[in-house]
Order: sequence, then structure tokens, then C-alpha cells
Amino acid sequence: MRIDIVTLFPDVALAPLSDSIIQRARAAGIAEVEAHQLRDWSEDKWRRVDDTLCGGGQGMLLQPGPLFAAVEALKREGTRVILMTPQGRPFKQAVARELAACSHLLILCGHYEGVDHRVVEALVDDEISIGDYVLTNGAIAAAVVCDAVIRLLPGALGDERSSEEESFMVPDRLEAPAYTRPVEFRGMKVPDVLLSGHHSKIRAWKEEMAVERTRRNRPDLME
Amino acid sequence: MRIDIVTLFPDVALAPLSDSIIQRARAAGIAEVEAHQLRDWSEDKWRRVDDTLCGGGQGMLLQPGPLFAAVEALKREGTRVILMTPQGRPFKQAVARELAACSHLLILCGHYEGVDHRVVEALVDDEISIGDYVLTNGAIAAAVVCDAVIRLLPGALGDERSSEEESFMVPDRLEAPAYTRPVEFRGMKVPDVLLSGHHSKIRAWKEEMAVERTRRNRPDLME
Repeated sequence: MRIDIVTLFPDVALAPLSDSIIQRARAAGIAEVEAHQLRDWSEDKWRRVDDTLCGGGQGMLLQPGPLFAAVEALKREGTRVILMTPQGRPFKQAVARELAACSHLLILCGHYEGVDHRVVEALVDDEISIGDYVLTNGAIAAAVVCDAVIRLLPGALGDERSSEEESFMVPDRLEAPAYTRPVEFRGMKVPDVLLSGHHSKIRAWKEEMAVERTRRNRPDLME
Repeated sequence: MRIDIVTLFPDVALAPLSDSIIQRARAAGIAEVEAHQLRDWSEDKWRRVDDTLCGGGQGMLLQPGPLFAAVEALKREGTRVILMTPQGRPFKQAVARELAACSHLLILCGHYEGVDHRVVEALVDDEISIGDYVLTNGAIAAAVVCDAVIRLLPGALGDERSSEEESFMVPDRLEAPAYTRPVEFRGMKVPDVLLSGHHSKIRAWKEEMAVERTRRNRPDLME
């Protein structure tokens, strides 16, 4: 897969993708990621890419010209053009899987008050939001999407771990609490059942605890 | 505000906080952020911090020892200890505001299959998830939380922009489409109403478009 990111902050988008699993996937050629400076497509000599809002309102908006030029330079056959914006559909594990099946993602990052709406209407296939909170810019959100997508690509996780038992594989269920050694730590013991070797009892305990935890932390998933 | 982040990937957590608004807030002393390497609190000479799961299952878990030692070293009066985990309560703008009122955040980042549950029970005040997707590690999630929180601190945004008209200030409503110059771009025009100078009509149009956009992209918010 290839991913191109267009942003005012290429380093912010790329830096989180330079460690561990994602870096290995990039080094192995499983994912090729490049971040581009939006200002390189500015239409004036001051490299400006923003302007004030039509109709009033505080803040600045990304202009259409530089974003159209960027997409025209980077788009190819089969590209999915994504805009990171709090106005988008919620990013979820199912969306990550959907994007992991694409051959080329072109991710546009919002900044300031967002982007001129003609960009959304004419260029963008998919508006995506990583959550109901406001970030200073879309570059961090792009990094989140890249991380979640790249780790799903065949070969990315290697033998090191499996994605099968993870949260959101069962979409309406959190994971059960988990324990590792030491069995006793400062007077706190690992639950006996996990040390019993009795697989069906362990499975039943995990199931029960997962439901309990979901009820407490994510009642919205139980509905 | 002070924020300490404990993670296997300090660079991943810090890099996104090195640009623009957040960097200026850090330089101005509005927010002091430090990322710590969890392995510095490892209990063995190989700097290991993880072990296999009790009761079986694939993957590795962060051990309790290093995390307890990290929290004991970094916690002070009034610290809120946060664990980044997909099992947590959802991070939303209201949670960002809540955290922005704290004097000290100590953010622990999950990795592998997560952390030993004794950490959650004995150390953690707040389990937080930035969204229903799986990331390779919690450092990116910590950066997301820091970005959203720091920009809310008094003085962080300066005069450059206001947070007042933003999405999720009205929690059940997305923002209306926005436009900037040029008024006509490749045959696509800014809606006439925004150029009319008629403030009450502009307000009514924004309201209508915001509802329409929310209905299309976020029907869950309309319920």
C-alpha cells in the first residue's frame, strides 16, 4: 500500500510512524508513506495557503487552490482521497479494515478552521474523524489512521502478535482484564482461575469479565 | 500545567507536540511536557518490561513492576494518573476540558496486549480511549490527548483563533460548511448568502447546513 499525506506539518504526521511495528512494515515495503508540505502548492510567493472566512467568523480556512493542485499531483488510478476533519464519519476498526484494502490513500489534513468546502465536494471521497475532540491540526489524526491501517496489512505484525483476540474484533465488547508475572505483586494476586490451567473455566471467566468491563466503561456498546 | 508521559516510544509521543500552537504553548511555559522511557524502570538487566499472559493467549503484557516504579517516581500532590487503553472511557471534548483543569497529568501508554490489570486497579485514576480502533501503541494516543488538552489552556491559542465557534462546543452538532477566497474557483461559487453581508440570514444558513451535515455524517449525534 502507498499512503501520501498532505499537511502543513509533515513531521507531525510522519514522526509517530517511525518506530517499532510501523517502521518495520515501512522498511519491509509493506507500506510506503510520504508526507508532503501543502505550502509547496501555494499560489503566491509568501507560500500562503489560507484566507479568511466568507460570511464572517473567526479564524482562517485552507484555500481550495493548493489542495486541488496537491491532489492533482498525487492522485492516481484507484486512489482514495481522505480528509481528516472533525466533521467526518467516525473512524472505527471497521473503517481501518476498509482502508487497509485500498492500494493508495491520499490523506488531506485540515488546519485552522478547516478547509474550503469546495475541496470536500469536488475532491474528497471520504471525510474521517478520529474522535469527538478538537486537535490543533489534522496531521496527528492522519498518523492515527496510518498506524491503525498499516498494522492490519498482511505481514505487518509478523509472528510477534495476533490481532485476532483484540478489542473491537468483537465490535461490541471490550477485552477482559489481563495479568502477567509476577503472580503476586505487592500483595495483589493474579486471579486463581487464570492459573488453574482449566481452559473452559478461563474462557468463561474472560467472557464474564469482558461483559462486566464493557458495562462499566462503555455502556454505549451494550445497547 | 505539567504532563509526564511514560511509554516505550518517547519520541512518538513527543514529536507531534513539536510544531505550531503546541510548541509555542510549551515554549511560553503554558504546558511543560516530558516523555519518559518505561524501560528506565525495568527490573532486569535486559531492560525487559513485558511478559506472557497468565491463563494463555497470544501476545505480551506490560508487567506491573516498571509501571509502579514509574508512577512512584513521577506522581506528586494533585496528579491525575491516566492510562491510554482501548478499554477506557471515550475521550471527548468534555474530557479534554476536564483534564485541562488538572495541574499535573501522568499518562501511561499501553503497548502489546496492554498492561497488567493490577496497574489499572491500584495506580490509575482514569482509563481513556481516543477511539474504537486498535493502535500499535498508546504513545500516539497520548499525543492526541496532549494536543487536545494543551490547546485549551489559557493563552495557548493566543489571538490567532478562537475555540468558541468550533465543533463540539455545541456537543451534538457539526459545523456548517465554510468557504474562503476566491469567490469563484473552477466554476464553483461560494454560496450567495455568505457574500450577502446579511448577518441573520448567514446565521440561519449556517444553522440549517450544520443540522443537514450532522444528519448525513453523524446521525448518532441527532438522537
